Amino acid sequence: METARIKEFAAEFDPQPFHLDEAAAQTSVFKELVASGWHTAAVAMRLMVTGGLPFAKGLIGFGAEIAWPKPTRPGDLLHVECEIIAITPSRSRPNQGVVTVRGTTFNQNREAVYLLTAKLLAFKRAI
Amino acid sequence: METARIKEFAAEFDPQPFHLDEAAAQTSVFKELVASGWHTAAVAMRLMVTGGLPFAKGLIGFGAEIAWPKPTRPGDLLHVECEIIAITPSRSRPNQGVVTVRGTTFNQNREAVYLLTAKLLAFKRAI
Repeated sequence: METARIKEFAAEFDPQPFHLDEAAAQTSVFKELVASGWHTAAVAMRLMVTGGLPFAKGLIGFGAEIAWPKPTRPGDLLHVECEIIAITPSRSRPNQGVVTVRGTTFNQNREAVYLLTAKLLAFKRAI
Repeated sequence: METARIKEFAAEFDPQPFHLDEAAAQTSVFKELVASGWHTAAVAMRLMVTGGLPFAKGLIGFGAEIAWPKPTRPGDLLHVECEIIAITPSRSRPNQGVVTVRGTTFNQNREAVYLLTAKLLAFKRAI
């Protein structure tokens, strides 16, 4: 995460002092500039989309539970690890179902900065 | 939500065909171009921050449950309605607690497009 992009994202979507200005951030709860949690969430989505989670029709989410156990800081390098934790066939639509994916986003110190458990639309392969 | 910004956000954070290209979107589950759910989430955050939810030290989230009951489309005008649904004092830190906020983001047809139930850090007022 680059400082300039952290501030740009925050200016557009989360304009709070601790995401915008180093000096103001020092007097905040965080004591330093940190990225918006929504910026971290968006970067994690990019990593999941471009990392090739194997959903033929795309990553289409109904919803999710998310948490930010630690803030993301300028210079952090993020990566995401995902696992499929449930597959629930639809009762009403026999060709589709809901796949529950758990993704954990780590920084370069292997600290978890973002947890996501998402329910995604999936389709049965044509037989 | 403007079409150009929907595509820009998607190119950076959620590069899937149904967020990037009208023609490709027509053959997708959505049948038309739609915004990334993370874009909708980010816009909702902006509306909550700038709309002045009354947290003296800012909107600082531990985590949330989110859902996208409908997609956001180009031209949609969004607004958010929030309510405080719980206040839980911290046992270990007497000056702080967790406030649970439920926010619903509606489009111009009053269809809910994004549901958020977030746990936020809050501080007691000095007495």
